[in-house]
Amino acid sequence: MKKTIFPHLIPISGISLATVEAGIRYKNRKDLVLFKLPEQSHTAAVFTKNVFSAAPVQIGKQHLAENQPRYLIINTGNANAGTGQAGLDRALQTCAAVAEQGKCAVNQVLPFSTGVIGETLPIEPIVSHIKNCFAQLTDAGWADAAQGIMTTDTQPKGFSHQFIYDNQTVTLTGIAKGAGMIKPNMATMLSFVATDLAIEKTLLKKLLVDAVNQSFNCISIDGDTSTNDSCVLTAAGTSKLPELTDEKNPLTVLFKQTLNNLMLDLAHAIVRDGEGATKFIEIQVAEGGDENECGIIAETIAHSPLVKTALYASDPNWGRILAAVGRAPVDGLEIHRVSLWLGDFQILEKGEPIRSYQEAPVAKYLKNTDIIIRVTLGRGVAETKRWTCDFSEAYVRINADYRS
Amino acid sequence: MKKTIFPHLIPISGISLATVEAGIRYKNRKDLVLFKLPEQSHTAAVFTKNVFSAAPVQIGKQHLAENQPRYLIINTGNANAGTGQAGLDRALQTCAAVAEQGKCAVNQVLPFSTGVIGETLPIEPIVSHIKNCFAQLTDAGWADAAQGIMTTDTQPKGFSHQFIYDNQTVTLTGIAKGAGMIKPNMATMLSFVATDLAIEKTLLKKLLVDAVNQSFNCISIDGDTSTNDSCVLTAAGTSKLPELTDEKNPLTVLFKQTLNNLMLDLAHAIVRDGEGATKFIEIQVAEGGDENECGIIAETIAHSPLVKTALYASDPNWGRILAAVGRAPVDGLEIHRVSLWLGDFQILEKGEPIRSYQEAPVAKYLKNTDIIIRVTLGRGVAETKRWTCDFSEAYVRINADYRS
Repeated sequence: MKKTIFPHLIPISGISLATVEAGIRYKNRKDLVLFKLPEQSHTAAVFTKNVFSAAPVQIGKQHLAENQPRYLIINTGNANAGTGQAGLDRALQTCAAVAEQGKCAVNQVLPFSTGVIGETLPIEPIVSHIKNCFAQLTDAGWADAAQGIMTTDTQPKGFSHQFIYDNQTVTLTGIAKGAGMIKPNMATMLSFVATDLAIEKTLLKKLLVDAVNQSFNCISIDGDTSTNDSCVLTAAGTSKLPELTDEKNPLTVLFKQTLNNLMLDLAHAIVRDGEGATKFIEIQVAEGGDENECGIIAETIAHSPLVKTALYASDPNWGRILAAVGRAPVDGLEIHRVSLWLGDFQILEKGEPIRSYQEAPVAKYLKNTDIIIRVTLGRGVAETKRWTCDFSEAYVRINADYRS
Repeated sequence: MKKTIFPHLIPISGISLATVEAGIRYKNRKDLVLFKLPEQSHTAAVFTKNVFSAAPVQIGKQHLAENQPRYLIINTGNANAGTGQAGLDRALQTCAAVAEQGKCAVNQVLPFSTGVIGETLPIEPIVSHIKNCFAQLTDAGWADAAQGIMTTDTQPKGFSHQFIYDNQTVTLTGIAKGAGMIKPNMATMLSFVATDLAIEKTLLKKLLVDAVNQSFNCISIDGDTSTNDSCVLTAAGTSKLPELTDEKNPLTVLFKQTLNNLMLDLAHAIVRDGEGATKFIEIQVAEGGDENECGIIAETIAHSPLVKTALYASDPNWGRILAAVGRAPVDGLEIHRVSLWLGDFQILEKGEPIRSYQEAPVAKYLKNTDIIIRVTLGRGVAETKRWTCDFSEAYVRINADYRS
């Protein structure tokens, strides 16, 4: 897909970052990122639901439950997943090396890894570059960090949003990586978002979960769920505005809306950079009995290789969409209530093909980069959206070649 | 994948077939098949579970419930699915044309269609070739029929099995088509199997369902389920052996075993001809709490595009298999009980990587056409198998080009 322009990322007061080339898997590649968080900051995180979560996810969950994070350490090139006890040991060694330099407790460091699964994490290149990381820490380090967490991504992903409240500018900046192994109902790939606001811990976690549920959990590239996905939200607490403690506070409402938009921007950027993707597909399912069944149907469409290859070919082969709706695990769907649109072109009206349907203009519409599929179920008022990309030969090539 | 030799198909006494070029979608292509069944025959069928089943599936179910089939009429080139009331009318018109020539009731004809979804079935080429079909009927028509039901298949699929009981030879012959849109928990693509034995109707249906559950419902190519899948079993009743009425009768036991083997041969042939497939993958999941959870895990592996692309590349990227097991919707899986093999090479022993593991011989093993993945869960004694193929650029190419 056409490259998007990487926006300017605005520093978050109190947070500094460093990105170095540690040579974990490849030479001359930024592959190790350190975040330093201020003492008064609060951090929340959501992790993959894959039961075989990677060693850093297991250690990270434990550390987050025990203490307040001061450092995040992220490596690419190796996921440290499926690595047994040795993997846990190495994730802990990484934290210990950071804690030693940073003069904090080992459980104040959260480790993150992404890359190939099932290989031993090379610990020496990481440990030997920690000191270098500390020397490079800068609050202007966001753009470099966005590059440093990339694996098969073709471009870095990051956004900053700001708003003004009570004469104070509030900033939110976030970065993300991920281009494959992406599916709803888990956290996401790696994403790190921060604000200068102070936010009470329980509220922070709730805001994060809500934002993830309407963004990263609504996208899909290939239906695979990684062992390492993590999304982190830090409230630095360096703003002059009072700490947020109440969800109904007007500042909280404003922050929540901005956070949701930022997360959605990051999630959409991941879809647009989907492995081999040439199109960005929005799937709208409306008139459902509840939001859950709308989501199931949208996801069945989003995961269908036959739908995704037809979209790649700009082929209005809408029967494949209908077949996907029909096999979705939702009870009692009736085809004589179902209508279907591609963009503004209606294809089906309550189960009957539209008589005036012409294929040529729809085929022309499908040549766009951004496509909307709309299905109405005629059995209620609930609706939802999901986002995915098309499926090209390049996806296969990228994933067949990934380790070579 | 390397082409298999098409075996000699042995006629079933009393059943005759015709295959003609009706020009439904393409010129010079066999696309219309007629089966004539003897008066005393019994026929059972299982159909797709897609709730948007095609018009011929809806009509076929109704006719089967009302009367005893005398003819099966199958067209390729058009699935007559997503076609509303007009589609039902055209499926009935097809049956009526056959009934007129065959001098039987309209509901003694079962219609089957396969091909593109959502386009109007051209009825004229079908109706005008029915007379020609009747003129061509021959009991030696099985091989032609196997060709006549193909769509994106690269080779016809058919098998005959025989056994001797009480000095009588019993014959089973079956054909199948299907190379994409294939997923467990539905009937299959199209498959037509017959025997000369006489079998009571209720028992016939049970034998068919059991055979489908251990064959067609255990294979997967792309996780998509068609609107048209149907599997038909006819007992011609032309054998001198007595009618089967009891599941425990020794002849029934022998027949059941032979039928299961034949169906498994057909199902495996579909996987080997999977769109773009270069490898045949058997997934074994053992030591499960029950067969159902073994099946869920095996299917999650079988549907993972990341596993399938790695196998295409002969890449022992076993972490992707582990990640698929971990995201399968099975409660309480524990990684410290899970072991994993690729062929005879053990990778994991109760969650810990095998210390002596060497990648090179495993990569060499993965260059074979036939691959076995074995996972043990360490939580019971149940086990099951699933079969799938790898995922190549050619799959995308075939499905992006299918209509052009």
